[in-house]
Amino acid sequence: MAFDLLIENIKGLVQVRDTTPSFLSGAEMAQLPILSNAFVAVKDGLIADYGPQQNSPKQAKQIVDATDRFVLPGFVDSHTHLVFAASREEEFVLKIKGATYEEIAASGGGILNSAKKLQAISEDELFYRSLPRAYEIIQSGTCAVEIKSGYGLTVKDEIKMLRVAKRIGIETGMVVKTTFLGAHAVPREYSKSDYLKLVIEEMIPAVATEKLADYIDVFCENGFFTPEETIRVIEAGQKVGMKPRIHANQLNRSGGVQVGVKVKAMSVDHLENIGEEEIELLKNSGVMPTALPGAAFFLGLPFPPARQMLQAGLPIAIASDYNPGSAPSGNMPLMLSFACIKMKMTPEEAINAATINTASCLEIVETHGSITKGKLANLILTKPAPSLAYLPYSFGYNWIESVFLKGNLVQNKNS
Amino acid sequence: MAFDLLIENIKGLVQVRDTTPSFLSGAEMAQLPILSNAFVAVKDGLIADYGPQQNSPKQAKQIVDATDRFVLPGFVDSHTHLVFAASREEEFVLKIKGATYEEIAASGGGILNSAKKLQAISEDELFYRSLPRAYEIIQSGTCAVEIKSGYGLTVKDEIKMLRVAKRIGIETGMVVKTTFLGAHAVPREYSKSDYLKLVIEEMIPAVATEKLADYIDVFCENGFFTPEETIRVIEAGQKVGMKPRIHANQLNRSGGVQVGVKVKAMSVDHLENIGEEEIELLKNSGVMPTALPGAAFFLGLPFPPARQMLQAGLPIAIASDYNPGSAPSGNMPLMLSFACIKMKMTPEEAINAATINTASCLEIVETHGSITKGKLANLILTKPAPSLAYLPYSFGYNWIESVFLKGNLVQNKNS
Repeated sequence: MAFDLLIENIKGLVQVRDTTPSFLSGAEMAQLPILSNAFVAVKDGLIADYGPQQNSPKQAKQIVDATDRFVLPGFVDSHTHLVFAASREEEFVLKIKGATYEEIAASGGGILNSAKKLQAISEDELFYRSLPRAYEIIQSGTCAVEIKSGYGLTVKDEIKMLRVAKRIGIETGMVVKTTFLGAHAVPREYSKSDYLKLVIEEMIPAVATEKLADYIDVFCENGFFTPEETIRVIEAGQKVGMKPRIHANQLNRSGGVQVGVKVKAMSVDHLENIGEEEIELLKNSGVMPTALPGAAFFLGLPFPPARQMLQAGLPIAIASDYNPGSAPSGNMPLMLSFACIKMKMTPEEAINAATINTASCLEIVETHGSITKGKLANLILTKPAPSLAYLPYSFGYNWIESVFLKGNLVQNKNS
Repeated sequence: MAFDLLIENIKGLVQVRDTTPSFLSGAEMAQLPILSNAFVAVKDGLIADYGPQQNSPKQAKQIVDATDRFVLPGFVDSHTHLVFAASREEEFVLKIKGATYEEIAASGGGILNSAKKLQAISEDELFYRSLPRAYEIIQSGTCAVEIKSGYGLTVKDEIKMLRVAKRIGIETGMVVKTTFLGAHAVPREYSKSDYLKLVIEEMIPAVATEKLADYIDVFCENGFFTPEETIRVIEAGQKVGMKPRIHANQLNRSGGVQVGVKVKAMSVDHLENIGEEEIELLKNSGVMPTALPGAAFFLGLPFPPARQMLQAGLPIAIASDYNPGSAPSGNMPLMLSFACIKMKMTPEEAINAATINTASCLEIVETHGSITKGKLANLILTKPAPSLAYLPYSFGYNWIESVFLKGNLVQNKNS
């Protein structure tokens, strides 16, 4: 067989699995299979073969020497808001200077600020503003991503966002899964009940008609949407085939996890504020508990109690939450550092959380999340590194030498 | 005049000063002069001219278009330990798994671990292992750096470290200032008093004879060296022309700041544990209070109380503390993010802290730390950015497009 790409002399081929588990939980997460002194070969955009170096094929159209380097499967980032009109560093500065949440809201800040800016620009303009962020995360190793709506807050603007999210997938070759998050905040001109009516009766049907959303999400939080309101929205989405995922327990123990388990959500995301009750409920629930350590870091929140969750046998996924307000970073290597440094996950647990488990909760584990024959050849080649643990340990260091998306070397399109 | 390099159409030329203050303190730190729509021109490795774009010269050997981009002076990192034999991620993993400090020490961890590894290799080997870290920090914008000894802990190994630090400066073109830190830890085979005798009577004279150290430092901390011991070592160094800087108040209010003020240190570094007494003492002391936010982040310590310090009129410098045990990152852009996100410094304050103030406490403010005619043309060109505040806000994003060291584009030597 003539291979398109051969990476050989790999110091460690990480997350090698002949067959992929549907997800990893509890003690399983500590086990990360690594093949030392290995090769991986690619054909037609797929992983065609791998094994010990002595079995390496001798020929391929392109051969890359990975001496002293690791190869990992591309990251799957299962929670982002990367389609947005503009960054919000002006609010960041206001917060540094001590402005309260109310003052920032009064000065036009928050989600409604993002909505106003997004409503003001065309779909094409939104696409061209968001595309560099997609290339940015690809270069930091993300090869599949979930993108939410929720800065539109009108029927046409929510649709605009989701169309842009889909276009990003087509343009970049990165797999994109989309989530409708109309219930992200209540626009000023609506009462909450009127807005919920709009979401349920107009937005969801319109999004469904265009088949723009794989999932439906609600910001279930004190001051945003209650558990009861969340369930109403989720059920309306489920009726048209959108599976639920929930923004839960970021700022309060507000019942989000309970809702997630009740509606059999794909994931409950954030979890900065959970306790034994939520952990107990999540056991064997089929719901993926997802930590977003970039948001906890940026907002100064407690990090989710990962060790307690793992001890209880739960799975954990790690995603970036890339968004302009509370987590302006889509850098998954830094998320791994946060997971290890702040959440006391081992490097192996963190890598499992950002590959297999995020792929699982995006329902793409058949094609992503591990080095397995037949999966997409989404590969991260590291710079020389003394060990796998060096990667999360050396926080802030760009340890990625190159990224291959479906077997093609990603060229730098940002600079 | 024929320029060697012209960077034109710069969105914002940051830290432009016709004359440089000796340092910035208190409310002054909020002021960061920026020239919009500007050019900067380089001749013979120095900043030869700058000004509004309409006055830009039309010719130069190399012209770079900086539309939508900022240009900053290169960072000055005034506290690192970047000469070391090996990273220590194995200890990082032990800590994640709950090992105590004592258990890690018993398994051969800590400073003594670094010393053992460094003692076992030749000067050349140490140089070749450390050099990639120097290129790594240059690529993240550091153009002048302080490097400490302190992993040698024998006469010949301390000298080996300092020789390597000097060689790094010669090899890379980055300005290197060296600090003798023999009093970093007590080797197991010595009593503390015997080791202090070795430091004072043998190491300091030997280092002085070879003119290897600009400064002398002591790890003044409970369990390491007391204030009295610190003063003894410092005074021995001062006698042979080494100016003091002190590792102070990282883990305890152990009197380090008091020592620093007493010996008129160039800087007191760490300051995670200071209160009103230390802040009061530092007022008008001429000692530069230096925060090392990477270490506070990695160890989970409180960050220095920057707002309280600025309110009291103190200056603040920001450095990386790059070392294999407690701060395995030399990434100054991330340090700026930590300063803003965790220490509530404004972007302007953080940039002043990592340029003018670090240059000041390394006594190189005549040549570094600002865009000023006649200073070294150490320049950071950013990727397109909507505002200056975007840079620290977008934590983890590599916003540096290129670095010019003495006017020469730095080529990537790491990958």
